[in-house]
Amino acid sequence: MLDKTRLRNNKLFAKIVTPEQAAEMVMNGMNVCVSGFTPSGYPKKTTLALAEAIKTGKKCCVNIWSGASVGPEIEEALAAVGGIKGRMPYYAASNKSMKKSINDGVISYCDQHLSHFAQQVDYGFYGNVDLAIVEVAAINEDGNLILGPGIGNIPMFIKHAKKIIVEVNTSIPLSLEGMHDIFILQKPPYRREIPIYKVGDRIGSPYVECGIDRIDCIVESDILDHVRDLVPPDAVSEAIAGNLVDFLEHEQKMGRIPEKMLPVQSGLGSIANAVLIGLNKSKFENLEMYSEILQDSVFTLIKNGKISQASGCAFTPSPKVWKMYKEDPDLYRNKIILRPLDIANSPEVIRRLGVIALNTPIEFDIYGQANSTHVMGTTMMNGIGGSGDYMRNGYLTIFSTESTAKEGKISRIVPMVSHTDHTEHDNMVFITEYGVADIRGLEPARRARLIIEKCAHPNFRPQLLDYLKYAERYFPGHEPQSLEHAFDMQVQFLQTGSMLK
Amino acid sequence: MLDKTRLRNNKLFAKIVTPEQAAEMVMNGMNVCVSGFTPSGYPKKTTLALAEAIKTGKKCCVNIWSGASVGPEIEEALAAVGGIKGRMPYYAASNKSMKKSINDGVISYCDQHLSHFAQQVDYGFYGNVDLAIVEVAAINEDGNLILGPGIGNIPMFIKHAKKIIVEVNTSIPLSLEGMHDIFILQKPPYRREIPIYKVGDRIGSPYVECGIDRIDCIVESDILDHVRDLVPPDAVSEAIAGNLVDFLEHEQKMGRIPEKMLPVQSGLGSIANAVLIGLNKSKFENLEMYSEILQDSVFTLIKNGKISQASGCAFTPSPKVWKMYKEDPDLYRNKIILRPLDIANSPEVIRRLGVIALNTPIEFDIYGQANSTHVMGTTMMNGIGGSGDYMRNGYLTIFSTESTAKEGKISRIVPMVSHTDHTEHDNMVFITEYGVADIRGLEPARRARLIIEKCAHPNFRPQLLDYLKYAERYFPGHEPQSLEHAFDMQVQFLQTGSMLK
Repeated sequence: MLDKTRLRNNKLFAKIVTPEQAAEMVMNGMNVCVSGFTPSGYPKKTTLALAEAIKTGKKCCVNIWSGASVGPEIEEALAAVGGIKGRMPYYAASNKSMKKSINDGVISYCDQHLSHFAQQVDYGFYGNVDLAIVEVAAINEDGNLILGPGIGNIPMFIKHAKKIIVEVNTSIPLSLEGMHDIFILQKPPYRREIPIYKVGDRIGSPYVECGIDRIDCIVESDILDHVRDLVPPDAVSEAIAGNLVDFLEHEQKMGRIPEKMLPVQSGLGSIANAVLIGLNKSKFENLEMYSEILQDSVFTLIKNGKISQASGCAFTPSPKVWKMYKEDPDLYRNKIILRPLDIANSPEVIRRLGVIALNTPIEFDIYGQANSTHVMGTTMMNGIGGSGDYMRNGYLTIFSTESTAKEGKISRIVPMVSHTDHTEHDNMVFITEYGVADIRGLEPARRARLIIEKCAHPNFRPQLLDYLKYAERYFPGHEPQSLEHAFDMQVQFLQTGSMLK
Repeated sequence: MLDKTRLRNNKLFAKIVTPEQAAEMVMNGMNVCVSGFTPSGYPKKTTLALAEAIKTGKKCCVNIWSGASVGPEIEEALAAVGGIKGRMPYYAASNKSMKKSINDGVISYCDQHLSHFAQQVDYGFYGNVDLAIVEVAAINEDGNLILGPGIGNIPMFIKHAKKIIVEVNTSIPLSLEGMHDIFILQKPPYRREIPIYKVGDRIGSPYVECGIDRIDCIVESDILDHVRDLVPPDAVSEAIAGNLVDFLEHEQKMGRIPEKMLPVQSGLGSIANAVLIGLNKSKFENLEMYSEILQDSVFTLIKNGKISQASGCAFTPSPKVWKMYKEDPDLYRNKIILRPLDIANSPEVIRRLGVIALNTPIEFDIYGQANSTHVMGTTMMNGIGGSGDYMRNGYLTIFSTESTAKEGKISRIVPMVSHTDHTEHDNMVFITEYGVADIRGLEPARRARLIIEKCAHPNFRPQLLDYLKYAERYFPGHEPQSLEHAFDMQVQFLQTGSMLK
């Protein structure tokens, strides 16, 4: 029930409507912009009601702009009823109807660097923000918005929104207030620096400026974000994490990482989770994270005193983590800062702080290019997200992954990636369960031999070496490639279900 | 003859040696780091003497680190005698022996983003700066270095150099003094912002700090930089430039470029030159350039009052431009700022200022990926240089090129680039003599049709469309690709000398 703790100005109560009434504001063709990042902090009630209205005859197909992928109440519910025309700037394969619609060409999807999108909306590249739907913990007495656990691009959307629907979610703890640091960059030519010099620097306000008059209506919500508990790491993930921690410790010993350990960014998923658990056991103390997203394990590391400060644009609270959070909210609120996506992923800040970037590719090749998005060059898996922001600007950039997929039938190391998201100019180190290939400063031929020797699964090493030798013999040059045979492994997989010779 | 205007402290005269004596300091296996950027501001005497010594039996093979490609006294002379073991971070095809050695695998070359290299040297990723050789206009009374027309990475090299050879070039006008703005970033975790907020902001000192004691020896030089006059634009380049200027004017009219025109970056070469000449005739006034390199035409635009401020890490003065410069040195010194390469190409500054990036690719594909480096995926042509720094961080990023090469036998638009340097996430607009493809916000299928329709040569449109339709039919997905046929056009060229069906 919405009370004075959630709506802190009496005028706000008059704006409460049902989800169905709010959904009536959504018109065909609108650019509809939502809060949240991954299944965290996104609105749910209005889009569910909209999906119902479409089912019973409302003609409405809209563009959905967000921070990243959000939850099923938007991605699944609206995609399943044909309610989405266009989608930016990210999507994740976990949303089945969205995945199908994007790969069938039913939904126009443009995959973007996450640090780019908010500023390009600001520049007017994509048209108007017709409607913003924002999930909040509370609205303060001035009509400003106290957000939940995921921010994404909502501060920029609110700046430009012609109409605003606010979903006040009573399941979000009010103790999150003060965790957010909302800072909106001006447009060029009047832009100043982003004054973050340490992971913990606060540079903005704890709420999104909005104002009572700009809020068109308020919807009550209590639906929890749909976050699953992560599975514990298996032996392979643990081996990868072990290789990574050993490598970082060695780099510090050699003086290439300063004594005061640099902040770490970590991508999503089970390997990233294993890496964080690996860091928990490492010799590093007072770790800092400057990341896009803070996974569950960050909370464990904070609780253990291993992480002293963490910054991201969202945390994804599984039920377990919400429980942990509620036992000591002050601890986490003091250690965690949530920032808008373009600040969390800012090239300026990532490079200034010297962030060590840790991400997971779909596949990478012998010369050091990486594919983060397209399976067999064609099927969109997950968007590039923030991986490009971090892998281009990080102090040290590391891709880690299992050497194979599909029970060993796919080698994640190939002669040439079927889609390039990260170039040889960006990627410094590759790690699998077999070892570490540090390709900094190496020419392509040495990179290739090192990657095959250190990272590839032994079953695939001979055929990768065969390709390299064939290309060197018949197509000599700086980076020998046989354009006729570069994709043989992928083509064979498509035809036979296995890359193995 | 070196006098007090060039050596402003009497102690310096005792350090004068012959080039041959200086060359004796170069030892086998050293990392030798040179000033300059493109054939501008690089040392010449010592390396020529070293090449002679190698010819007559000196065993010496070194790594050459620079800003970018430099002139024949290094690239050609040393490569021709087998004096170069490794090369970073850039090279250009105009240096024949270097091109051959890199593509034969004789010289280990690692191609890098130019904004990355100085900081990675600073981080210690590549070992020691054993020796720096720097060309200067003069040495001041404190032993600090007043540079010539090209800076490159020499400030960072001097910071770390164990030994320093200074070539004082009496052909460099002393009136350049005051044009440089030398600023060295600290390493993380203590790094601050780069406080440039306008193209003309000066944030450092007019010389490279060095000190008399650190200078091991001084060599007199008077060899001019090897810069050729650019050929005037042909009809095709003029058509490209016309399309580009029309596009920029339209964007400003639509409010997507602010009324105060944003700074422009321009790559090297004849098309870039045509574009600058096109801007000279455009309605834009008080243009600013924030660029890596300032070509000859910048001087004409300054003289015409069209450019009010230009920033780069070098200018490449052809004999004509030196003449123009000498007629009014104050004008150019007031309008031009020369910065270290990592500042000129800084993602932080490029993004903050909202730079409009204009570059030229070797080839680009129907989905919007671009190749800047490798011919047919294999042969290194020119390094990626700063194109990645600008194309990733620019406000608006534009690739322009002729639609074909080799008298129409090569289409610069292909189904899939044979090497990806710039991804679909970076590139916004493609321009050829046929038109403009603005792919911002479009999904791959629409991008492909637009690029084929607007940019490809009419002779190649049918076969590009055939590929697209084939891939869509047999490999449906977000970005349809037939991995068996993606390189058919390039493979046919390799086999028959033409891509035409």
